Amino acid sequence: MSKKQVRIGMVGYKFMGKAHSHAFRDIPFFFDTEVVPVLQAIAGRDEQGVKQAAEKMGWASYETDWRRLIERDDIDVIDIVTPNNTHAEIAIAAAKAGKHIICEKPLALTLEQSLEMLDAVKKAGVVHMICHNYRFAPAVQFAKQLIAQGRLGKIYHIRATFLQDWLMDPDFPLIWRLKKQISGSGTLGDIGAHIIDLARFLVGEFSEVVGMMETFIKKRPLGDMDIHLKGRVESDKWGEVDVDDATAFLARFENGALGVFEATRFSRGNRAGNRFEINGERGSIRWDMENMNNLQVYLEDDERGLQGFRTINCTEVEHPYASAYWPAGHIIGYEHTFINLLVEMMNGIANGYSPVPNFEDGVRNQAVLEAVERSVQTGKWVKVSELLQSTQLQVN
Amino acid sequence: MSKKQVRIGMVGYKFMGKAHSHAFRDIPFFFDTEVVPVLQAIAGRDEQGVKQAAEKMGWASYETDWRRLIERDDIDVIDIVTPNNTHAEIAIAAAKAGKHIICEKPLALTLEQSLEMLDAVKKAGVVHMICHNYRFAPAVQFAKQLIAQGRLGKIYHIRATFLQDWLMDPDFPLIWRLKKQISGSGTLGDIGAHIIDLARFLVGEFSEVVGMMETFIKKRPLGDMDIHLKGRVESDKWGEVDVDDATAFLARFENGALGVFEATRFSRGNRAGNRFEINGERGSIRWDMENMNNLQVYLEDDERGLQGFRTINCTEVEHPYASAYWPAGHIIGYEHTFINLLVEMMNGIANGYSPVPNFEDGVRNQAVLEAVERSVQTGKWVKVSELLQSTQLQVN
Amino acid sequence: MSKKQVRIGMVGYKFMGKAHSHAFRDIPFFFDTEVVPVLQAIAGRDEQGVKQAAEKMGWASYETDWRRLIERDDIDVIDIVTPNNTHAEIAIAAAKAGKHIICEKPLALTLEQSLEMLDAVKKAGVVHMICHNYRFAPAVQFAKQLIAQGRLGKIYHIRATFLQDWLMDPDFPLIWRLKKQISGSGTLGDIGAHIIDLARFLVGEFSEVVGMMETFIKKRPLGDMDIHLKGRVESDKWGEVDVDDATAFLARFENGALGVFEATRFSRGNRAGNRFEINGERGSIRWDMENMNNLQVYLEDDERGLQGFRTINCTEVEHPYASAYWPAGHIIGYEHTFINLLVEMMNGIANGYSPVPNFEDGVRNQAVLEAVERSVQTGKWVKVSELLQSTQLQVN
Amino acid sequence: MSKKQVRIGMVGYKFMGKAHSHAFRDIPFFFDTEVVPVLQAIAGRDEQGVKQAAEKMGWASYETDWRRLIERDDIDVIDIVTPNNTHAEIAIAAAKAGKHIICEKPLALTLEQSLEMLDAVKKAGVVHMICHNYRFAPAVQFAKQLIAQGRLGKIYHIRATFLQDWLMDPDFPLIWRLKKQISGSGTLGDIGAHIIDLARFLVGEFSEVVGMMETFIKKRPLGDMDIHLKGRVESDKWGEVDVDDATAFLARFENGALGVFEATRFSRGNRAGNRFEINGERGSIRWDMENMNNLQVYLEDDERGLQGFRTINCTEVEHPYASAYWPAGHIIGYEHTFINLLVEMMNGIANGYSPVPNFEDGVRNQAVLEAVERSVQTGKWVKVSELLQSTQLQVN
Repeated sequence: MSKKQVRIGMVGYKFMGKAHSHAFRDIPFFFDTEVVPVLQAIAGRDEQGVKQAAEKMGWASYETDWRRLIERDDIDVIDIVTPNNTHAEIAIAAAKAGKHIICEKPLALTLEQSLEMLDAVKKAGVVHMICHNYRFAPAVQFAKQLIAQGRLGKIYHIRATFLQDWLMDPDFPLIWRLKKQISGSGTLGDIGAHIIDLARFLVGEFSEVVGMMETFIKKRPLGDMDIHLKGRVESDKWGEVDVDDATAFLARFENGALGVFEATRFSRGNRAGNRFEINGERGSIRWDMENMNNLQVYLEDDERGLQGFRTINCTEVEHPYASAYWPAGHIIGYEHTFINLLVEMMNGIANGYSPVPNFEDGVRNQAVLEAVERSVQTGKWVKVSELLQSTQLQVN
Repeated sequence: MSKKQVRIGMVGYKFMGKAHSHAFRDIPFFFDTEVVPVLQAIAGRDEQGVKQAAEKMGWASYETDWRRLIERDDIDVIDIVTPNNTHAEIAIAAAKAGKHIICEKPLALTLEQSLEMLDAVKKAGVVHMICHNYRFAPAVQFAKQLIAQGRLGKIYHIRATFLQDWLMDPDFPLIWRLKKQISGSGTLGDIGAHIIDLARFLVGEFSEVVGMMETFIKKRPLGDMDIHLKGRVESDKWGEVDVDDATAFLARFENGALGVFEATRFSRGNRAGNRFEINGERGSIRWDMENMNNLQVYLEDDERGLQGFRTINCTEVEHPYASAYWPAGHIIGYEHTFINLLVEMMNGIANGYSPVPNFEDGVRNQAVLEAVERSVQTGKWVKVSELLQSTQLQVN
Repeated sequence: MSKKQVRIGMVGYKFMGKAHSHAFRDIPFFFDTEVVPVLQAIAGRDEQGVKQAAEKMGWASYETDWRRLIERDDIDVIDIVTPNNTHAEIAIAAAKAGKHIICEKPLALTLEQSLEMLDAVKKAGVVHMICHNYRFAPAVQFAKQLIAQGRLGKIYHIRATFLQDWLMDPDFPLIWRLKKQISGSGTLGDIGAHIIDLARFLVGEFSEVVGMMETFIKKRPLGDMDIHLKGRVESDKWGEVDVDDATAFLARFENGALGVFEATRFSRGNRAGNRFEINGERGSIRWDMENMNNLQVYLEDDERGLQGFRTINCTEVEHPYASAYWPAGHIIGYEHTFINLLVEMMNGIANGYSPVPNFEDGVRNQAVLEAVERSVQTGKWVKVSELLQSTQLQVN
Repeated sequence: MSKKQVRIGMVGYKFMGKAHSHAFRDIPFFFDTEVVPVLQAIAGRDEQGVKQAAEKMGWASYETDWRRLIERDDIDVIDIVTPNNTHAEIAIAAAKAGKHIICEKPLALTLEQSLEMLDAVKKAGVVHMICHNYRFAPAVQFAKQLIAQGRLGKIYHIRATFLQDWLMDPDFPLIWRLKKQISGSGTLGDIGAHIIDLARFLVGEFSEVVGMMETFIKKRPLGDMDIHLKGRVESDKWGEVDVDDATAFLARFENGALGVFEATRFSRGNRAGNRFEINGERGSIRWDMENMNNLQVYLEDDERGLQGFRTINCTEVEHPYASAYWPAGHIIGYEHTFINLLVEMMNGIANGYSPVPNFEDGVRNQAVLEAVERSVQTGKWVKVSELLQSTQLQVN
């Protein structure tokens, strides 16, 4: 194969590392991108762990220090799938080294930090993306097309949830996602960030927000940081949860739409309830990640008496990305959202631009996260644009 | 009120009697029919029972012998809601007395008997209907309109089920519905008849059928005949079930469509699984009695990429009967199918015709039932038209 | 029939009047209440209209002045189904006359006014109820039972919507529901009040709220006040809409639960999207008025691997009110919520108590409505209890 | 990696070739099988096509004659994904060469031919499987576990459909799947075979069947054989369709269960309507390939009032194969059914047995197909066991 190869170096290798690795492997199989990814190296501190992961997932080599990965000449892209508190340092170093960057969400611990990251990639002129993968469900991309074509008309409403229940056991340990120092925030930054991204993608920029947060269980046993992928442990040592178990907020958008958002890890029976409904002047759409291939579409222009939400299985040749996979009606899954996203990264690298969502989206998302947190602290509405201005954002 | 009154005399007063009584009461409330029903009298053998029922349901008087009801001059319509083995005698007597007749399904125990009934009402020139109420769900009537308008094009397929589970307890007693002498057949005539009627209404006439039947539990305790409305009893006397617990059959229609039908009382979790899907050249529809207000509609002429089954809540002013009730989105229920059916009966009486489904439909339905039974006995396909011809049917 | 009769006088006779009238008629048919309602008289200003309505719906007489209705000795209960701005005057007069009262929601235009009404009924010692009918869907009553039994454990979340789209046409006229002087508020008081009631019923008392409101279309043609039941008119005169088209708010409950609420008339494709989900420590429930017979229930105590939301068709003998109607699987509809509610009114009258929801519930609901409005004005959280205290509420 | 490698040689490389290739690539990524597949070589007659396919899908080499593939010493497994008429010759040659075999369904053109294939693999002592991939949806495997544990009790009913609509355009060309000489049968063998397999897997062996078949469009333009993956062509040459567009049949199982089956390519709006419902004494299950991660389960032992179908998202650690993929609620898709199936093939090779479904399942499936065809020809029930006996089947 004579295609140009793009050599990937991935920092971290757990849940998200698995998702990214698989996606890189699948890109040349399903797509004809101009450049193709090569699984060159991964980095992790635990040599045995990183070595096994590299073997298992098909990476050609490994490093035990991410700095070494960035120094290597045979790496074109740094893929950051580590805990949130490390994103900034790695990304800024990678940018300085001239590497393209794909970074997991949320971009940073704070708006300030995210701006530094954006500044770094802009100065370095590298291609950058943030991994809001849910945008890349074909049904969501198709929703975007419908909205862009004006099929829904002016947007009046979005309501979105990301509901989980994996944290409800009081004996579930104090993993890194529950420590503000490492995660920046709890449910809000972890899954709230995803529905903020979907709203920005489909509806537009946030104007102002007011929110509430709650930590239902305030002390938890100390334990393995990645325990939620393995099961629970028992412990006689306890630590304080200093992030939110649940966050909800109201929003106004710059285009006049109203938004209602809720993210929680205390919603029994909802394993991954990433859902939204958008109502416009001429139509509405609904989506649910647990049936992610389907988009529900209501069109007011349908004949009277024949109006109703249509269940569209977005696996037809007309649907974004769908023709790369299987015939109509043969569904794809969670992992394909990463393939589609990284296909765009390849397109960006081949043609010298940073596809959306990129670090600017990361910054804007972080501004919403920060606005929600401030509104919780103050009990008042917070304008997102003022936050951005106060930090002298170079976002255009 | 100066409207012409139509005085009803109802024979029987249990489950179906309740449904009919309620419907008669509601007709003038919801509809502006030219003639209005008056709940004149009911008949039943048990004086205490019939007296209480008359009071409870608002009937002006009662009789303990249905013959007396038919003799009464102040009765215009005889409504037959008794067990199947009594339909013919009552209907023929009522016809001879010049009463209009509404009769529960199945019309008779046999095709022969049903023909005698049709002959009687024709000779008498009275208005007659058979109570296939499910036709009168607004969603089903709307489906009929769509098919009649050619929105589905040529019909290729119907698959229909009526699935129940109330008979699965082996201690459930041997009620009249399980005795061939009284019921004519089991599941087939009781609920299979309904899906046959829906198919005839929506697709057309049956050409030939082949079926299978099974009685899963062959002996049951003797007990109260109407026990299934009250609960079970224990017994040390046992009797034989001589009707089918479950029947399924394949069908070809005269217009070339293929049908697959299944009726059973041994389908756990399905309380009233009266469902069908019809596929045509240009579209498809799906309906489920347990969500009876909704019709699923797929239209091939929808734009590519936007094709999918629409869930239409048939409560809009465009939907049949809907505007008589509540605003859009405010659903109606099972009992309204009877109201709508009896509204048609009133229209027929006012204007001197027998609305569909009438006794001719009852006969044609009975012919399909009989064809299925014969096919079970012979293990071969049976032509419905030959059955009808062999009995010298006067059906036009 | 020797049962004690309760003679109803109803003020108003449009949409709600139809729902109430039908329910009164059906009570003795479906239920064995100790006392039975008699449709004695209705009142309305337009003599022709009220006369026709009385005939059509089966009322024995009519008045053209509601004051006359209250004076009549042959009236035991005043049923108020008029626009919101008239509730207080009628109710207070009726209470003084010693009539029992059933009043449509919202109870009043303001919290203050609602307190006067509560004061009046308490002083008079009459039976009172407010017509939050959705509580009386069997599935909702069953949800209440599950929560009361602790099947969901401690409640963490409720999210509820009431989504409509009948107001989206800019040419739709300025009906009374859109004038603050008559309606008190727009979407909030009309349908927001219903989901507030459901939340109070199922979760508990509100502690504090913060909300947002929007009027998307600010001027509308003048026209017939009840036009939304008939269709639209054209006009060259325009008036200002001074109530909300859409309202959303966040809430904290006294028991620590979090709530997210949204009511809108600008939600395309949602005719009557009255839906909620409640998440507790041990389980969750979901309900949707458009499929009102079903309750979705998730129970954490289900065996691992077999956990999932169950679709329970609440038509079984175990479900509240269900055995009064039809066999399992045979659904009921919107109108039955009124029957069930008014059955409770009859029980209250027979036994001398005011069943929930009564005027106290109306006051507490009004306090939440007012808190939401104030939070919109101030941009800050408003404590419901402080509002109640500031008005020196006699609510216990 | 020191694991034993199993070198695959695949004959054919179109739709199924893509599905198999992808699955082989993913096995070592997701699973820890004792032996791992190596994509050694593919064979196809068109050198340019096969070369491109090998490159695209990651195969190390290619051949233009499948016989050459079988001769190669560096091939351990022959994977047959060619049209049906070639299965027997390739499989028998591969068996004689001592290769393990995985073969697409239906196994052969006739029962006789399938028996020769079974005979060949048995004599050769090689590992063999048939590619009924739908068994390997985690939800279906979980259904099997529930049934095996007796959770549904005695099985009374299965109803299954495989509904497609890709053939409804009369201009769609006469591809190989529509020529009996190549495909053996039409809809029946192509997709009917899948639901027969699911029924055999979940319910048990078929006893007797009676069916009907129809070819709705009898002449079609000649054109590219694989056109249905690409779109349609126009043609002035027409050929006869000599296979079925639609087949339905009734079945009795050896354990007394009743089955109703329908496969069609003329079912508008159903792209891949592979669905079944099974009813047993104690419970029921429902499954739909288009939402393949979900299993609907009804358990009669659930508390009264809380009975209902549960929607179980089979992505939990308790569900078969699920823990190899992603956290709960993160769905997988069509392609994963092939991964799971081929994992079993690897297990079989590592441990010297032929996992189900193997060639014996292929033979038994073929016997049902043949019984259905004969019943269509004779218009009578056909016993599957007699067919098997008449061919002196060595199936144990």
